[in-house]
Order: sequence, then structure tokens, then C-alpha cells
Amino acid sequence: MKYTVAINVMPLQNLLDPQGKAVLGGLENLGLSQVIDVRIGKRITLEIEAADENAAKKVAEEAATKLLANQVMEHFEISII
Amino acid sequence: MKYTVAINVMPLQNLLDPQGKAVLGGLENLGLSQVIDVRIGKRITLEIEAADENAAKKVAEEAATKLLANQVMEHFEISII
Repeated sequence: MKYTVAINVMPLQNLLDPQGKAVLGGLENLGLSQVIDVRIGKRITLEIEAADENAAKKVAEEAATKLLANQVMEHFEISII
Repeated sequence: MKYTVAINVMPLQNLLDPQGKAVLGGLENLGLSQVIDVRIGKRITLEIEAADENAAKKVAEEAATKLLANQVMEHFEISII
């Protein structure tokens, strides 16, 4: 069966996120001062051919650890969508 | 109150995603041939000071339409997390 799996890769909470800080400044300039913090990561969706959901998640986890996320600076979470 | 709102910005389904295609090739080289398609977008989390969830979502929507998403090439979805 075909599964669509989403992987969210975000910068670790205790690391600076300069891209997020830049966007925060941009939002302030637009008058959106209610926004007090911004963090920017990646969202990757994979179409995976697998026997069941668990097998699909396993493939996604391997893809994330081997290629998509740099675990020194980022953490990831996987969900079937 | 403070709300954390996630905005997922993805390339439109009928547009090419060259970054995704490159990652698909990389996954094949790693032996993950079960992956048949990859699409890469952004995930942005905003900390928003707002009276209620609806107000927070409204701020996030304004941020997405005015700055974070290019609606010619991308679509976005918003969720409170």
C-alpha cells in the first residue's frame, strides 16, 4: 500500500534560529507585534510503498536519520497523514 | 495567553519540486527505493500572544499570507499545537 508520511524537522529548542529571528523582525515591520517568537524548520512529505503503517514509518525514520535531519542541530517527528 | 501556532507551507501539488526530486534521488542511492515521491516545504512555528485561539489563528493567517507563503507557488495550513 501507499502511505504519505510527513516529517517535521525543526531546529533544537536551545539553539539560535537566525532565519526565525529575521522573520520575526519582518512580522514586526508588518505590524504583527503579537508574534513573540518564530522558529523555522522543514516539512517533508514522503510517498512510501510499504506493507503497513509501521513499515512506512520505519522507512521514514531511516530517511530522516540518514539524510533529512542533522541531529546535532535538529530534531524530527514523523506522522502518517 | 500565549499560543504556539504551526504553519506548514508546501509547494502546490501540480508544481515541480526540484528540491524534493533531488532528495528522492539521494534516498534511492541510500537504498530506500520504497520512497516513490518527496515534497519539501517549510514548517514555521509562531509564539503568539492573543486573547483566544481564534485570534491567534487570525494573526498566523495574516503572517502566512503577507510574508511566509507565496500563494502563487505554495499553499499553507495552520494549526494550534
